[in-house]
Amino acid sequence: MMTPNWILQRAGLTPDRVAISWGDQRWTFREMADRAMDIARKMRGNGLKEGDRVALLAAGGPDTVFLIHGGLLAGFELVLLNSRLTRAELAYQIQDSEAKVVFTDDALLDLAPDSMAVSRLLSGEEEDFQPAELWEEDRTLTIMYTSGTTGFPKGVRQTAGNHLSSAIASALNMGLQDGDVWLCAMPLFHISGFSILSRSLIYGMTVRLQTKFDAEASAEEIADGGVTRMSAVAAQLVRVLDILESRNQRASDSFQQILAGGGPVPSPYIRRAEALGIQILQTYGMTETSSQTATLSAEDALRKSGSSGKPLFFNRIRIDGAEKPGDEGEILISGPHVTPGYIGRFSDSPAQVDGWLHTGDIGRLDDEGFLYVLDRRSDLIISGGENIYPAEIEQVLAGHPSVAEVGVAGVEDKRWGQVPAAFVVARDAVPSEDLEVFCRERLAPYKVPKHYQFVSELPRNASNKLLRRELKTMLEQQE
Amino acid sequence: MMTPNWILQRAGLTPDRVAISWGDQRWTFREMADRAMDIARKMRGNGLKEGDRVALLAAGGPDTVFLIHGGLLAGFELVLLNSRLTRAELAYQIQDSEAKVVFTDDALLDLAPDSMAVSRLLSGEEEDFQPAELWEEDRTLTIMYTSGTTGFPKGVRQTAGNHLSSAIASALNMGLQDGDVWLCAMPLFHISGFSILSRSLIYGMTVRLQTKFDAEASAEEIADGGVTRMSAVAAQLVRVLDILESRNQRASDSFQQILAGGGPVPSPYIRRAEALGIQILQTYGMTETSSQTATLSAEDALRKSGSSGKPLFFNRIRIDGAEKPGDEGEILISGPHVTPGYIGRFSDSPAQVDGWLHTGDIGRLDDEGFLYVLDRRSDLIISGGENIYPAEIEQVLAGHPSVAEVGVAGVEDKRWGQVPAAFVVARDAVPSEDLEVFCRERLAPYKVPKHYQFVSELPRNASNKLLRRELKTMLEQQE
Repeated sequence: MMTPNWILQRAGLTPDRVAISWGDQRWTFREMADRAMDIARKMRGNGLKEGDRVALLAAGGPDTVFLIHGGLLAGFELVLLNSRLTRAELAYQIQDSEAKVVFTDDALLDLAPDSMAVSRLLSGEEEDFQPAELWEEDRTLTIMYTSGTTGFPKGVRQTAGNHLSSAIASALNMGLQDGDVWLCAMPLFHISGFSILSRSLIYGMTVRLQTKFDAEASAEEIADGGVTRMSAVAAQLVRVLDILESRNQRASDSFQQILAGGGPVPSPYIRRAEALGIQILQTYGMTETSSQTATLSAEDALRKSGSSGKPLFFNRIRIDGAEKPGDEGEILISGPHVTPGYIGRFSDSPAQVDGWLHTGDIGRLDDEGFLYVLDRRSDLIISGGENIYPAEIEQVLAGHPSVAEVGVAGVEDKRWGQVPAAFVVARDAVPSEDLEVFCRERLAPYKVPKHYQFVSELPRNASNKLLRRELKTMLEQQE
Repeated sequence: MMTPNWILQRAGLTPDRVAISWGDQRWTFREMADRAMDIARKMRGNGLKEGDRVALLAAGGPDTVFLIHGGLLAGFELVLLNSRLTRAELAYQIQDSEAKVVFTDDALLDLAPDSMAVSRLLSGEEEDFQPAELWEEDRTLTIMYTSGTTGFPKGVRQTAGNHLSSAIASALNMGLQDGDVWLCAMPLFHISGFSILSRSLIYGMTVRLQTKFDAEASAEEIADGGVTRMSAVAAQLVRVLDILESRNQRASDSFQQILAGGGPVPSPYIRRAEALGIQILQTYGMTETSSQTATLSAEDALRKSGSSGKPLFFNRIRIDGAEKPGDEGEILISGPHVTPGYIGRFSDSPAQVDGWLHTGDIGRLDDEGFLYVLDRRSDLIISGGENIYPAEIEQVLAGHPSVAEVGVAGVEDKRWGQVPAAFVVARDAVPSEDLEVFCRERLAPYKVPKHYQFVSELPRNASNKLLRRELKTMLEQQE
């Protein structure tokens, strides 16, 4: 199956509609396509050709959008690198992806020393080429790294068909209106941010862009009607609610919904949002499913509190081994939004078994078909919407000379939902500050444990497997 | 590619939402699916199996919806027969389609004597079977006959993927809201009506059903907010406008748009509609494209008067041989909504050449990419939204013993837009009433010529091809 090149088709259909608004600047779909074509020609001027894999390391904002769209027009598989990672983490992903070139914002060059600065790209040679009029639906548009259970991040392929079906299923569930403006305060290298760009192209919808999440500005635009939809994690949502409440403001009548992902939204937030005229749609999604798989509608938000809702129209959800509603088991997902697989080190690991993605997450479906996610895969820690895998942190700390054994688990945190905590069996006395410095050099800041607790042994089962859930209990008992 | 069984998926996702409203009766998606499953079991009780081709001849209304959905759940290829045709026309289509069974409303049994009455179906045996959970996108869901240029109607395959992409592209263009209700006064055996049923399942949207177009009721529901969208042809539209104007009523604020197909809508109608708060979206579509290919947005309706707009998001339109904007030529269409081909007598005629449907219609694209349809294929006559092919009528009249030669063309008509007129070279003197009776026995009423004009010879070109466009001039000169 083919789909028209979204960027060109959209520029042809609604050339004068605003695509991106940022601060007090605006770009129409035609202007955005023109800028992206300029960049595409310059990218191709570096001897790159259609189908090449190219990485982008960029800070966000409209220039990042143009860079991404340029790469798509140039016909590349785009590895979208997370600018919050450390140099070592990035080096691993760049090497694993075998990207031919990394284009990096000048300000981020320290993080990826062997890459090409965007300023150099823009002042370089052009190749005059005709962008493809059609995209194969199984063409890989983007690759995003997600932390794996083994501690090695996995590069997830996301095809045109994945993003397309995700955007459409979202519209069938949330609706779509003339004049919709989606507030994007999410990183564009994340599926939460990139999926807003896809929707913009496919719907012909304006994106109101924030380079970094700005709670004040978000609250203001929700109140004054500048935006109609927003994506947020619980930690962002509550800051927006705080501000609106403290100012005695409500959402504008034209405001529709906040799509809330990256972990559960506590019921009190939903009630507070409702009182301000804001509908909260809780969703369950992941990098492997190019955003939402299931979303809870606003009308069911309180009745089905704690649920992530029902699958979107194209998708199916099954609980592995469940014989009746309510049975718990691994959550399996099927649909056109599920990744065909991984690249690099994990290119031989199948993403689907008989058409089903095995998420590793544990959940149940109730008798009406609502999904409840009980436990994220492999003790995943979700901190302010970012996924953190304990195994990755454990691997780093195990490299410290004073650490004999280490286990990491997520513990509750008022602001971030969860933060990582490290439980260490020490070889010799070592101050926790040393361990923190050691981590800080090797891990993105959000992955660095906020608590370090020294223990005599780690809880393990008969086959010596670390029982991470019991780690949490150890901390809770001590506090 | 697979898509979840729309009927079951929708009943699972939004079981309690109203699917069909008719008079003062309502059926939810769950109730509709249950009724359709009952019918499916009874259909299968007749020894039919998945993949069988089955024809339906039904009068419209909710029972027809359940019958259609029953046939889809049973896994059949459904030949949707036009209940306005004559017995002879139906006999041709039934025979050409090789349908294993024809299920016919009891009241229509005269039209298809060899078929099984729905009352007999419903009192018959059941087969307990599991409906498919997934549909292949290339599965043929429906077959609709469209008059061909040769005078033999052609059975057009419409796949799940055709209907799905059509419904989605329509939503991306028109928008989609909670509480949408689409008024369906179109025949369900036509793509104009059936496509509303598809949208209902895919969007989770209520259909307000009229068994036959009722101008009074339509106007009332547009005014009182009972419906938010409607499909109409120009002849229906103007009657609705007349009524609203005569009552000094406007469309309710919640009313969105009228999708106007089946030929151009005169600009004065658009202005009158606008004054009543009604947006008119003019569209260009056909049976082979499962409804809309291009649609003119309301904001462009007057600026681009006479245009059918731009292609919907998944589609492309080309003018054969055009070198620059404005050049005229045959309209070619590409997209996932284009039929894979025909059945029966025309099963070997390719529907697409290199991925493009050759419509036979003549048009041009202006410099902004707006489509203008200049002449419908093969002098197609569009009368009240129904397609009439001159060749089909000519073939009938040529069978009359007193007719030596005959040409048919569409002439302007206040109520219907166009009506067919016959130009006859007589072998011997024959009253036009005789010709009319002859036609009435063999052709659906709307195809019977409204004018009969005796001429000494027909306009033909050098290679003796009938010049139908010159026929019109002959009539206009005489009047």
